[in-house]
This record gives sequence, structure tokens and C-alpha cells, in this order.
Amino acid sequence: MPTIDLNADLGEGFGAYACGDDGAMLDVVTSANVACGLHAGDPEIMANTFAMAKAKGVAVGAHPGFPDLWGFGRRRMPFTAAEIERLVAYQIGAAQALAAYAGHRIAYVKAHGALANLAAAEREVADAVAKAVKAVDPTLALLAIALTAQVPAGEAAGLAVHQEIFADRGYDEAGQLIARGQPGALLQDADEAADRAIAMVEEGAIVTTSGARLATPIRSICVHGDSDHAVAMARAVRERLRAAGVDLAAFTAT
Amino acid sequence: MPTIDLNADLGEGFGAYACGDDGAMLDVVTSANVACGLHAGDPEIMANTFAMAKAKGVAVGAHPGFPDLWGFGRRRMPFTAAEIERLVAYQIGAAQALAAYAGHRIAYVKAHGALANLAAAEREVADAVAKAVKAVDPTLALLAIALTAQVPAGEAAGLAVHQEIFADRGYDEAGQLIARGQPGALLQDADEAADRAIAMVEEGAIVTTSGARLATPIRSICVHGDSDHAVAMARAVRERLRAAGVDLAAFTAT
Amino acid sequence: MPTIDLNADLGEGFGAYACGDDGAMLDVVTSANVACGLHAGDPEIMANTFAMAKAKGVAVGAHPGFPDLWGFGRRRMPFTAAEIERLVAYQIGAAQALAAYAGHRIAYVKAHGALANLAAAEREVADAVAKAVKAVDPTLALLAIALTAQVPAGEAAGLAVHQEIFADRGYDEAGQLIARGQPGALLQDADEAADRAIAMVEEGAIVTTSGARLATPIRSICVHGDSDHAVAMARAVRERLRAAGVDLAAFTAT
Amino acid sequence: MPTIDLNADLGEGFGAYACGDDGAMLDVVTSANVACGLHAGDPEIMANTFAMAKAKGVAVGAHPGFPDLWGFGRRRMPFTAAEIERLVAYQIGAAQALAAYAGHRIAYVKAHGALANLAAAEREVADAVAKAVKAVDPTLALLAIALTAQVPAGEAAGLAVHQEIFADRGYDEAGQLIARGQPGALLQDADEAADRAIAMVEEGAIVTTSGARLATPIRSICVHGDSDHAVAMARAVRERLRAAGVDLAAFTAT
Repeated sequence: MPTIDLNADLGEGFGAYACGDDGAMLDVVTSANVACGLHAGDPEIMANTFAMAKAKGVAVGAHPGFPDLWGFGRRRMPFTAAEIERLVAYQIGAAQALAAYAGHRIAYVKAHGALANLAAAEREVADAVAKAVKAVDPTLALLAIALTAQVPAGEAAGLAVHQEIFADRGYDEAGQLIARGQPGALLQDADEAADRAIAMVEEGAIVTTSGARLATPIRSICVHGDSDHAVAMARAVRERLRAAGVDLAAFTAT
Repeated sequence: MPTIDLNADLGEGFGAYACGDDGAMLDVVTSANVACGLHAGDPEIMANTFAMAKAKGVAVGAHPGFPDLWGFGRRRMPFTAAEIERLVAYQIGAAQALAAYAGHRIAYVKAHGALANLAAAEREVADAVAKAVKAVDPTLALLAIALTAQVPAGEAAGLAVHQEIFADRGYDEAGQLIARGQPGALLQDADEAADRAIAMVEEGAIVTTSGARLATPIRSICVHGDSDHAVAMARAVRERLRAAGVDLAAFTAT
Repeated sequence: MPTIDLNADLGEGFGAYACGDDGAMLDVVTSANVACGLHAGDPEIMANTFAMAKAKGVAVGAHPGFPDLWGFGRRRMPFTAAEIERLVAYQIGAAQALAAYAGHRIAYVKAHGALANLAAAEREVADAVAKAVKAVDPTLALLAIALTAQVPAGEAAGLAVHQEIFADRGYDEAGQLIARGQPGALLQDADEAADRAIAMVEEGAIVTTSGARLATPIRSICVHGDSDHAVAMARAVRERLRAAGVDLAAFTAT
Repeated sequence: MPTIDLNADLGEGFGAYACGDDGAMLDVVTSANVACGLHAGDPEIMANTFAMAKAKGVAVGAHPGFPDLWGFGRRRMPFTAAEIERLVAYQIGAAQALAAYAGHRIAYVKAHGALANLAAAEREVADAVAKAVKAVDPTLALLAIALTAQVPAGEAAGLAVHQEIFADRGYDEAGQLIARGQPGALLQDADEAADRAIAMVEEGAIVTTSGARLATPIRSICVHGDSDHAVAMARAVRERLRAAGVDLAAFTAT
């Protein structure tokens, strides 16, 4: 069995607004994607999340998004690819500084929300993200959605690229995430999600809705922590993976 | 004659809003304090300012301020010293990343506006700024207002501290800047400003309104570029310094 | 027994961030203080809250605060009294427009958070809020914290002023709220809170920690809805008031 | 000769950032479109602009835009038509309140930037703007770009609709503004602009680049004030109109 990483988006509150149970999720995941203050997060939350992750031995990544707190980074904002380079660079640097402040270290970058979706679908946007990472720190890894434009873009930039799947999302026959709101987009059952995740990890392939296999190296599984149900599913996936003999470790661990 | 640095606050526009003539000022100064996006500046302006500074051989520093775009960082925002540490760290990191993106390198940090005034007057705030610098990158220098709490705070944190005077501001008998709006706060005449700056540099002392000398090592002179008059005065100070045989070089140059 | 109003702060989410259970609270209160987009709330939440309140027969007020989403309006921002007038006017107008859009009508104004605390303690700030209300619409009522500067300020401006007490907060011997964090600041027990509220309503007086009575006309009781515990206490206070024979009706009802 | 209105976008600064010479422009125009704080403007600037307009006898309108200070409202933000209704309503109300505060009165609404362009091209967006105006205050007029979807949308909502032309912009053969950056988009010469404006007003028709006439009732001419050149052109247009015997008066004057 391969070693696998579990990642989740954390630090997504803002000021008095909480978002999910970061403390609980830091006991589940091996890598935490931390919001950088533009779509969510603030310097207080960032520093606190990095400190908690450090204490629990969880790797941390910068999780840049569009500057859209109101839309939580889920709106497709009309920025050019060149502007996206600067937006992403800004956020990586802010995260690196607060990680250093908290005694931790940013190990990778993963795009958030609408930026991630755009970078999955459009090579130009994926290149913009990858270029920003490379320009700021070429030793940072890129956590990419499997079988999307993010992968070749990161590789073309010379970055270490690791592919992730989503525990609770359905895949179409091209290996792409089924859009939210479409039938099959979300897996509700924790056991079903865990079974499928284990199958994907064991077989090194995306399992589509029809059961087809699309081979690709899978190094991380994204879980969510934004509701009690989500945390329970994340825990279940973790326990089932361990029971199946899968080793859990951050992809950035050497 | 000693070598002296000329510094100015640049990159202080926001989106479509311009602030001063950065291109002109980059031909005058040897160090540019670049706003980091919270009181002014945005990723586009930051990257562009760093690229221009690199092309003109001007050193760059992060210029963090309070998160108060509306107030341009001039309002005394009610943040604790601990919160200020995180605010400053965030901004330094963002500036470092965009400087790297633009092929340049942040060499120092200088606090902006109300944050600078608080750090000048209150050791606890000065310590917060210095701790943030040290935590993010202890090789960064601190550009401190001469004879203020910023100096011992930076030294206590083990930072390289360089003291600056203001070309166009009056000093009271304690060597502190006379508050704007008070008599003697502003020098309007470029020649008078230049004469006084040269005297301060030559004598290694603040010259107060009464003509008293308060010895302190002066390594940089702050000039302004936010109006045509300010640019003209900055140019005049530069020319007069050179005519007096003063070498101009960034304090961070080795 | 007098008629009493129950009010709560609602519509305090922002974008994807929720804050409390507004639907539940709209079944408890007779007046809803709705955030206006600067310390919390956004046009979507405002319109939706006004529509729900209309459907449930709940009166609505504008609940202006400092422009401090990060601090949820709880930081004492350094604005002058004159600036506060404009800040408050802006928010009242925005609320009026969205209430009209939703088929409802703003009936009163109540200051939020740090702005409310300042207006309670400083007559100049209380006057600024009252002047803004009067300038925008002198038919709006002012919901004022009992026995504070808000009351005479509203009266001096010629506004209809209604005084509120807090169900879950302790009062010092001057009739002022005991600061959060101090002993006796918060009442945790719903029955105790309800008993005291009924006593205050029946006697027309603030009941202090020592049991002293400070007479003042009480027209509204503020309850909170920002946690499950808070909603439960609000419900308990409502039920106990009704069981005691107190009529519940918005103070702005004719 | 008909009576004509001259309108301009004013109050478009933000905090310390200035934008154009509002004082000069208020001596040129008969109607001022005032930014409402989301794409530009703030409560201080709004109140001040309304007060100046009142003192100079200039009518004022709310000038709502996308919530995009960074982009000055020029980015096409991905809001739904329903969200645009709330965004516009919010801004109209804020403007009404600050106009009342300043002793003036909002008489009309004109969309700004990307919102205006979308409302010109897409009837659904035009309807959203018109619905918001109607919901907030059906006595407000709509200032619409001539020969665009804004006109029928306003009429369908039962609003008083007034059509405007742009003094310094070229028109294609469909009567639509030639996009900035395209040949013929901008008229640089004040005399040429004035001649064409007078012709359009006299003939009641848009004059296209080829010289074709497209009849439509023209009630206002939009001029700009965001540069010295723009102010000079606006003055020239005003003087030439008066010299041609055209009466200048706000379209909302009775």
C-alpha cells in the first residue's frame, strides 16, 4: 500500500466569524491548506492555525484565492492571468511570514475555490499559479487536482507536483469533478467515500461514476471540515484508510 | 563626509488611485519604502514598484501600516501589540514575495503612518514591530526614526538598525518630530531643508528648532514625493547633498 | 403590567459566514436590529433578514456600527463625532433602502458594539448618532441603552427614545452594564435572567447587582441569539414574560 | 433649442485618494452622479459632495457600481441580476441618507462603470437596476445611456427615463459607444466634441462615426472631470452649448 496524505482547507474564518472545527481537523489531516487573508483568514487566524498545526505535526500549505471575502473566493473574479500571478505571490509570502512567525514553514501551495476551478480548467490560469509559486520559492510543492491542467502547469514550472482526489466528490468519465448541484456531485455516505478512496489509492486511479478507472498517481486525499457531518466523514475516511493498512503522511515529508 | 541614504514612501496608490510620482522619486532616492496592501498599495502596484526600483538600482523595504485603506494608515487603530506583530509579519511576507517575483529583494522594514508614530512613542509597539521583523527574517534591517523607541527596540531584537531624519520636518528640543499642525512642523523651503539636512549629516546630530544639537548616528534622510512641491524639494535635497560631497547610497548596501 | 419589546441583533453574518440562528430568533423577538454592511451584514443578508422579519411581523431597525468587519464592530475605532454622523447616516440609508426593497420599513435605529458603548459613555458620540438619525429621518425612533448618554442625546434631538435593558447582563450600582470579563457581567441562568427581567419591567427600574433599584422607563429587553445557549435563554425569557402576563409588542407599534 | 443637462461622475475619491477636481466640475455640470462607497467614494466624500452640489445648485444622483474599490467598478464582477438589485438598492439608500444629511436630495440614479456597460448590453441587468430604483423610490428618475437596454428597462419599470450621450466618445453605426482602445473611441478635441454634441442635441439624434443620424430623445450630455484635459473639455462643451443658445438645466428640474 502507498503512503497517502490527507489534506483539508483550514483557517477559513475571519475575525469573529468561525468556519469549521480546525482543532478537530488538525487531528485528522496530515496537511493543512491555510487561507491567506484575501478570500478568508486574517493574520490572527493564520498565525494561530500555523501554531496549532506545528504543535500537532501537520504540514502547512498556502491556500491562495481571489480577493473576495464576501464570496469566500467562490466567485470567478475577472482577473487576468498576469494579475493572478501577483495575487498568488502576495498570498504565498504572507503565509510564509506568518508560518515563520509561528515557528512553522510553508511547504506547498494549493489554489482555493474559483481560482482552483479556473486553474483546473484553463492552462493559462494554472500556469499563472505555478509561475507565482516558482517566482516566490521554487522549493515549494504544488498540490494539484488530479488529471487537471494544474498538473502539467506545475511540472512545466519545474515544481514538485502532487495530485489529490476528493473523498466526498463524484468524478465524471473524464476524471473531472462533477459540478456541485449535478447528480452524483457529492457522496453523502462516509463508508462509501472511504471505500472509493481506498480503491483509488490502491489502484492508483480515479474511479468515475460509472466505475471506470483513470490511472494517475494519487498522493493526497482532500477532506472537508466545514460541518459536523464533514468532520465525521473525514474521521471515517482516516480510520478506514488506516484499517486498510494505508500509511498516512504529508506528501511534503521526506 | 559620511555616506547617506535617501528614502521615500512609494507604491502608495491603490488600483486606479495614484499617489505621487513614483517614477520621478526613484531617480531621487536610494531606498524605497513600499506599501504592502493594507493601508495602501496592491499586488499590481507592489510588483511594479519593485520592478522599477530594481531597474533603477534602488533598495526596497517593506512599509507596513495599519489595515486602514480608508485612513491611509494614519488613524491610530486599536490593535494590541501582539496583533501588531502578526499584522507586520503578514505585510513583510507579502512584500518579500512580490519583491522576489519582480526580481528584487526586501532589505529592510520601516513602519508607516500611525503605526510608525506609535512605535516611536511606545516601546511596546516598537518591540512588536521589531519582533515581527526578527521572526520573519532576522537579516532584515530596521529603518527607525532617530531618537525614538524604535531604535532600542530594534537593537534589543538583534536587528541592524539605521536611523533616519526627515528633511522637511521640524524637531523639538527632545529631538522628536513637531506634530503636524504645530508651528515649525514643516519646512517649506528646499534650501533651508537641504542646509539643515547637510548640517545634521555632517555633525551626526539632530538639529532642533532652537538650533541645539542632539547627537545620534544618522544614516538616512526621509523625503516625500506626494506632490510636485515635495518632489522638487526631494530633488533639491539630493542635489545639495551631492554638491556638499556627501555620498548617496542605500544603508543596506554593503 | 406594561407592554414590552424583545430585541436582538440579527443579520450579522457576512457572505458565507453565518452568525446565529436568525430564523429561530425571529420567532422570539418583536424587534430585529439589522446590521448594515460595515461591521457585519451584506446586501443579500440584509434583504433576506428584512423579508423574514416582515413575514413574521417583526419590526426592524438599522443597527449601524464602525466600519470594521474584521473586528465585528467591537473595536473602538478612532473616528471623530462628525465622522460618526456620516457613518451612521450612510448605514441608516442603506438599511432603509433594502427594507423598502423587501417590503418592510425601518422603524428605529440602535447603535452596535463599540459605537454603542462609546455613545453610552460619551455624550458627544451619542449626539452624533442622534443627529444622524434626525438628519436622515426624524420619524425614526432611537433604541437607547437605559440610563446612558444615549437617552438625553436622543431626546435633545427630538427623537422618540425607548430604553432597553439586557436580559443576560449584570448592572453596577450606577445602572451601567458591568464590563465583559468582570465578575457579574454575564447571567448564565435563564430563569435568573427571566426573573430579573420581569422584576425590572414590573418595577420600571434597573436592578443592580446589589439589588438596588434605579427607576427608568423600560420599553425593551435585549436578548442574544449568537449561540444555542443564547437562543435557549431568549426563548426562556420570552416564555417567562408571557407567563407573567407581560404583553410583548414592538415599541414602534402604534 | 431644447434644454440640456450636463452630467459628470463626481465624489469618486476614497479617503486620502483624490479623483478629479470636483469643485471645478460643479461649476460646469447641472447634475452630479455621486459614487456610493462601493466602487469609490466614502461617507465623508459623499456628504461633502452633496453639500457642495447643494450650494452650487447642482442636482445629484446616486451612482452605484460593483463593490470593487480595487477595480474602481470597472471589472465585470460575477453577480447575478438578483444580487445586483440588492447591491443597487443598498447604494441608493446610502446616497439618499447622506444627501438628506447634507440638505440635498437624490433625484435620479445612473449606473457606473462595468455595471453600466452590462446594463447597456444586457436587458436582464438593466431590469435589475431599474427594479432596484423602483423598489427603493419610484419617484427617482433613471439616467440611461441612449439607445441601450437601460432605456426600455427603465420605462418598463415605470421610471422617468432620461437619455444621455457622451461628449468625448465615438459612436458606432448601431449608436453604441465604441469600446475604449478601438479607433474612434475617444474624441480628443474639445471643439470637435462640442460641435458634435450641439448637433446631436439640435437634431435629437446620435451622430455616428460615419455621420449617420440615429434619432432618440437626448436630455443630458456626460462630461468627464478626471484630468485637467477633461475639465477643460467639459468647460469648452458647456461654453459652446451656451453660445449656441442651448439652455442648461438639470433634467430633474421641473
